[in-house]
Amino acid sequence: MANITKKVSWSSRGDESGAAGEETPLLNGSEQSRPLRQMSSGSTVFQIGRLSTVDLEEEITTEEDSARGRPKEIPHNEKLLSLKFESLDYDNIENQLFLEEERRMSFMAFRCLEISRWVICGLIGFLTGLIACFIDIAVEQLAGLKYKLIKENIVKFTEAGGLSISLLLWAALNSFCVMFGAIIVAFFEPIAAGSGIPQIKCFLNGVKIPRVVRLKTLVVKVVGVIFSVVGGLAVGKEGPMIHSGAVLAAGVSQGRSTSLKRDFKIFEYFRRDTEKRDFVSAGAAAGVSAAFGAPVGGVLFSLEEGASFWNQMLTWRIFFASMISTFTLNFFLSIYHNKPGDLSNPGLINFGRFESEAMEYNLYEIPLFIAMGAIGGGLGAFFNFLNYWLTIFRIRYVHRPCLQVMEAMLVAAVTATVAFVMIYFSTDCQPLGPDHTEEYPLQLFCADGEYNSMATTFFNTPERSVRSLFHNPTGTYNALTLGLFTLTYFFLACWTYGLAVSAGVFIPSLLIGAAWGRLCGILLASTTSTASLWTDPGKYALIGAAAQLGGIVRMTLSLTVIMVEATGNVTYGLPIMLVLMTAKIVGDYFQEGLYDLHIKLGSVPFLHWEAPATSHWLTAREVMSSPVTCLNRIEKVGTIVDTLSNTSTNHNGFPVVVQVSGDDEPAKLCGLILRSQLIVLLKHKVFVELARSRLTQRKLQLKDFRDAYPRFPPIQSIHVSQDERECMMDLTEFMNPTPYTVPQDTSLPRVFKLFRALGLRHLVVVDDDNRVVGLVTRKDLARYHVGKHGLEELHLAQT
Amino acid sequence: MANITKKVSWSSRGDESGAAGEETPLLNGSEQSRPLRQMSSGSTVFQIGRLSTVDLEEEITTEEDSARGRPKEIPHNEKLLSLKFESLDYDNIENQLFLEEERRMSFMAFRCLEISRWVICGLIGFLTGLIACFIDIAVEQLAGLKYKLIKENIVKFTEAGGLSISLLLWAALNSFCVMFGAIIVAFFEPIAAGSGIPQIKCFLNGVKIPRVVRLKTLVVKVVGVIFSVVGGLAVGKEGPMIHSGAVLAAGVSQGRSTSLKRDFKIFEYFRRDTEKRDFVSAGAAAGVSAAFGAPVGGVLFSLEEGASFWNQMLTWRIFFASMISTFTLNFFLSIYHNKPGDLSNPGLINFGRFESEAMEYNLYEIPLFIAMGAIGGGLGAFFNFLNYWLTIFRIRYVHRPCLQVMEAMLVAAVTATVAFVMIYFSTDCQPLGPDHTEEYPLQLFCADGEYNSMATTFFNTPERSVRSLFHNPTGTYNALTLGLFTLTYFFLACWTYGLAVSAGVFIPSLLIGAAWGRLCGILLASTTSTASLWTDPGKYALIGAAAQLGGIVRMTLSLTVIMVEATGNVTYGLPIMLVLMTAKIVGDYFQEGLYDLHIKLGSVPFLHWEAPATSHWLTAREVMSSPVTCLNRIEKVGTIVDTLSNTSTNHNGFPVVVQVSGDDEPAKLCGLILRSQLIVLLKHKVFVELARSRLTQRKLQLKDFRDAYPRFPPIQSIHVSQDERECMMDLTEFMNPTPYTVPQDTSLPRVFKLFRALGLRHLVVVDDDNRVVGLVTRKDLARYHVGKHGLEELHLAQT
Repeated sequence: MANITKKVSWSSRGDESGAAGEETPLLNGSEQSRPLRQMSSGSTVFQIGRLSTVDLEEEITTEEDSARGRPKEIPHNEKLLSLKFESLDYDNIENQLFLEEERRMSFMAFRCLEISRWVICGLIGFLTGLIACFIDIAVEQLAGLKYKLIKENIVKFTEAGGLSISLLLWAALNSFCVMFGAIIVAFFEPIAAGSGIPQIKCFLNGVKIPRVVRLKTLVVKVVGVIFSVVGGLAVGKEGPMIHSGAVLAAGVSQGRSTSLKRDFKIFEYFRRDTEKRDFVSAGAAAGVSAAFGAPVGGVLFSLEEGASFWNQMLTWRIFFASMISTFTLNFFLSIYHNKPGDLSNPGLINFGRFESEAMEYNLYEIPLFIAMGAIGGGLGAFFNFLNYWLTIFRIRYVHRPCLQVMEAMLVAAVTATVAFVMIYFSTDCQPLGPDHTEEYPLQLFCADGEYNSMATTFFNTPERSVRSLFHNPTGTYNALTLGLFTLTYFFLACWTYGLAVSAGVFIPSLLIGAAWGRLCGILLASTTSTASLWTDPGKYALIGAAAQLGGIVRMTLSLTVIMVEATGNVTYGLPIMLVLMTAKIVGDYFQEGLYDLHIKLGSVPFLHWEAPATSHWLTAREVMSSPVTCLNRIEKVGTIVDTLSNTSTNHNGFPVVVQVSGDDEPAKLCGLILRSQLIVLLKHKVFVELARSRLTQRKLQLKDFRDAYPRFPPIQSIHVSQDERECMMDLTEFMNPTPYTVPQDTSLPRVFKLFRALGLRHLVVVDDDNRVVGLVTRKDLARYHVGKHGLEELHLAQT
Repeated sequence: MANITKKVSWSSRGDESGAAGEETPLLNGSEQSRPLRQMSSGSTVFQIGRLSTVDLEEEITTEEDSARGRPKEIPHNEKLLSLKFESLDYDNIENQLFLEEERRMSFMAFRCLEISRWVICGLIGFLTGLIACFIDIAVEQLAGLKYKLIKENIVKFTEAGGLSISLLLWAALNSFCVMFGAIIVAFFEPIAAGSGIPQIKCFLNGVKIPRVVRLKTLVVKVVGVIFSVVGGLAVGKEGPMIHSGAVLAAGVSQGRSTSLKRDFKIFEYFRRDTEKRDFVSAGAAAGVSAAFGAPVGGVLFSLEEGASFWNQMLTWRIFFASMISTFTLNFFLSIYHNKPGDLSNPGLINFGRFESEAMEYNLYEIPLFIAMGAIGGGLGAFFNFLNYWLTIFRIRYVHRPCLQVMEAMLVAAVTATVAFVMIYFSTDCQPLGPDHTEEYPLQLFCADGEYNSMATTFFNTPERSVRSLFHNPTGTYNALTLGLFTLTYFFLACWTYGLAVSAGVFIPSLLIGAAWGRLCGILLASTTSTASLWTDPGKYALIGAAAQLGGIVRMTLSLTVIMVEATGNVTYGLPIMLVLMTAKIVGDYFQEGLYDLHIKLGSVPFLHWEAPATSHWLTAREVMSSPVTCLNRIEKVGTIVDTLSNTSTNHNGFPVVVQVSGDDEPAKLCGLILRSQLIVLLKHKVFVELARSRLTQRKLQLKDFRDAYPRFPPIQSIHVSQDERECMMDLTEFMNPTPYTVPQDTSLPRVFKLFRALGLRHLVVVDDDNRVVGLVTRKDLARYHVGKHGLEELHLAQT
């Protein structure tokens, strides 16, 4: 159901207007809806967006709108696969044009291409590092300003009474920041909401999420995350870095910006999905690398979450981008921190240095770590469960941008209030050390020379709170403080994730985990007589943080490396691994990971690593879509236009066939052509009759296709006259003459493996005589999944 | 040329007798050579081995021997691709039997399979850890014994004069140990020579190197490495761990030992190449993990060097195996070192802890690091260049086992002599510190309370020497000592690699690098006035070690992680990356990496990551082998036997076809069957006529194929009577009915991608009517490579 689904944070409205307006047209984007689409460009976009929502049906003015907007389909649930998402094509279209170009290229030209790939990766890393640096400095400055203001206010009113004014000030400041952050997200670019990690996962998986790698998205994302962090929400600035890196990569690698209408005429060779995907992996890795100072972790993240075919050279380039990214960030931050040239403190988040001697662990602690991992897995699953229902609720009832902004402001105000109340009633006073590490120690009702311990957790950016929990000496927090903090922050963070703000979930997860981890450490020390064994609760804070984060996002390999790189100490590699594994196993027992959950709620046709285990009894014959709309090698223009305009055609790719015998027999496969290619051909009027009459017409080149990539115009924008409809088009040169095919009896796992390993978009199913009998696309494979009752099939819907 | 090639350390003799005797028969293994093969089993194997060498032609006794042994082919060079190596098949044979089994399996059964995979990975990790532990303790004990003996002797004779007796003792002890190590390798299992890393790379790439994952290989490898390290050669014990882990994995995952003739009737499902490969990756990772205490590095090693299709679940299992491996090793070593339960010191090699504060680096040091990387790359290329010619020399002249043993003994004696002479003439005396870290300080002619500095580098196991170079305080070594040491050790290590002993090249490389790195540090400190900047030469030793190792083996990502994990400090991650990248780029300019060089010298059909850049003008039509020997779906037994026995058939896979029209037309493809399957069918006499007459004959099951895996008997061992020859065989049930196919016009890169991504062994080329026109196998793709003059084609030879 169009209107309900699209409010899931990122399959949101932009997706509709974007897909219809600028991307390849939707399959149901028939001619009738053209007026709407034309309207939706420019500034009226928001209104249209709102018009087509469920509970505003009375406002719907045109027939077309109601056809799109009315909830005539089944209500949204996660057992649904949207037909709205298109696929990316990671298989090169090796048509004659392409092969000719490749064959013309010398070995040196390939060398140059390879060098430009490295240069682009370097650029991606550099720019990602710069953006990370910008975010970091902006957040630090603004948050510093805010906390200083509030602290002065609190100090003023602590003596005089009337702390409620401080509370109001705090809540108002937070709400204001968050309001700004939410407005730009909800109204300008809804796809920029959340951490962006699910979107990038989908992109790397091969699903085209509209507008996800646009310049506008990047700007909204970066500005949005600054305001949500400064606004004191329970969010981190790390997740958005990954998205930012990916957008940068997609932009830089194309050598132009479609939004700014600037084409630098460089890197034209890379204007196709295959190459773009590789660079986006590098960008995502560079983002992780900048966020956590973890270049290796970044590479592993890209590979664990995205890649399928592992290519050594690609991996090295990704690594290079990651490296440059950390390097750039370090370098500029070292200048900012007045220690120019000191590169030893990488990353946006810095967990501080764990000293090896103090932090050794022993065999008998391993079971404890595993138990903590299990707790983390359980809590993570609970977090995801709550968030799942919250998201469903949001999809149903909080889908208007203004409602979204109001919800974000509410959360901001509540966060401030809860924090204030907790601090106010806390009696946990700690002496202010000589080298007081707290940036903003709040004295409140504590004695002179003491500070409120609860305030160190709440009255700070989450990054600093995590560091305090890891490193503050034993006794800094009492158990009650930590317990209350864990409880409240858990629900706040859960409520926050999924708001229409740009924000990540890494840091809140770490913070929750660090709090209960430290609590465990304190409890252990107090229950055992040999207290010296459990001296350092910071160790348990680290383990708890890993467990909680692992329980929520369910990454293992990359997360281990990220944690190890962020703590700067490999001693804890082994326990962290154990903990993450345990958290994953326990968590998976109850609920999927947070990102997977949101992908599922978005009804995205996401392909997992392998076909479902019990799917061997399915064959290509059952899986494929049929009948297939085929085109002849030499086809009438009118037929092509009609085929493309036909709303019932379900595919973006058309097998090209040659008739051999009678018309009754299905024709033999001789190629595959894409909608986007046909559009370009129509636009340039590459018609056989025309070519004959005007000999001067230049031959269509690969460049024409590259120039149109990736925003191919919809078929409706191309005018074909009645005369032209009678012309013929020769597709031989443009089609892919050697598409991958499978016989009808191929089992689903085999089809799946071929499809996934090669990143295909269309797989033609042929019979023994090489005649087309069907076409397998992403949705045909993605709809099978293992549910509670064995293999289940998801419904397909035009949501 | 059979006799010359086979002495390249690992395409050596075992390969010939092994392949012919026990593996699937060689393609040219016709019936005439059967007497020889039968002779070659048992104790006469050495003699046969020697008989079939070039310069012993006069000893050749039989016609068959001369046919195999005479140098009738072109002389060996690296522009040759051996047809002798078979491929592994990473594509599941989804025939009816398999599909029936899969369809019968419930979801729970798949769960159980998944759990057994985890259990197996755990077992692999555990056993690899145990073996690493055994090697470590054995080396430490034996080396301790040796050095104590020599030290006492030296002390005795320093005063009395007659140190030449000490020299003799040292050389004799070394030679004796090495002799033993070389004898078991050269005579019992030549495949166990060297580090084993190239072999494992090939295995994971899909090349079947005979005998490489046998139990006997493991035993020889483990015992061999102990003796070569104790024998004082310039070798490490780390490389062989990777091979050991892989062998263990191959054994454990099959639930039986063919060598010991024990079948535990477990894990039968995993008895095929696809599954075995996955476990071998895990084993290799566990080996790296145990060797360097680097679980993440292990995973990356497996992926960087081996995998092509990245599967998340597989990666996690590999990670699990690595983790368990380090864990086991740590645990047992902690007991051995009397600190039970202290798990903070992982790995066989321990670089010692780098303290973060003392070791910070600054921006202006980055160019220095890069320069050192370039030096490392250059030196590494020089090392590889020397070793390349040495290997060619060995292939030509040192191929008899007894010569190999003698060469190894010579190297051992020379190593001892050089070390002794260097120590003897060294005047670099250092005061013995209060906490003298040296295990065996040699006083020699130094004053009392002082020790000979040169002796700390030579008179020690290489691992300890590396650690000393990293951590000994400033001034421990003088520049001359380090310079001389680098020079001599460089040539010794180069001479040593490729000997018929089980040994790795990691540690010697690190040692050379650490020596010249430290030298750089000392020189820098002495040339600059602001000496305080370059206080710690240990830092430069680390960078030098990374540069040298990177220059020799050319790994980047995994090596970075391994170095970081082994040093226990991530601060140096960034410089190490930079250095490794530089070393790789500089090194690649001159010469390939050491492992790739040895793979090339072995004429192995190794598939790289991508097709050569300028290969777009080649299509499947040019690449494929044709005509193809096809079988009919219902074929006469006699035809099958003749086909399999025919020496001119070049393939192990046969397309199965059905005739549709006249006999003159090529028939339509309907499946693919492997030689190994046909062998099993013939062995069980699954003939149509027989089945009809004896109704009780049981149906052939998947189990029968699994029991025969992987050592299928040669066709000559199967007796088929004249009556049986007239029977028919129905292949329908056993063939793979949906082999992957490509049209004739598919470009080479496209064929390559399909082949590599899916790990195929046979790819059928069909025409428009689905008729078989050719077959592409590994050698067809591997023979194209980019040389100095663009695309070159390697020669194929039955070497």
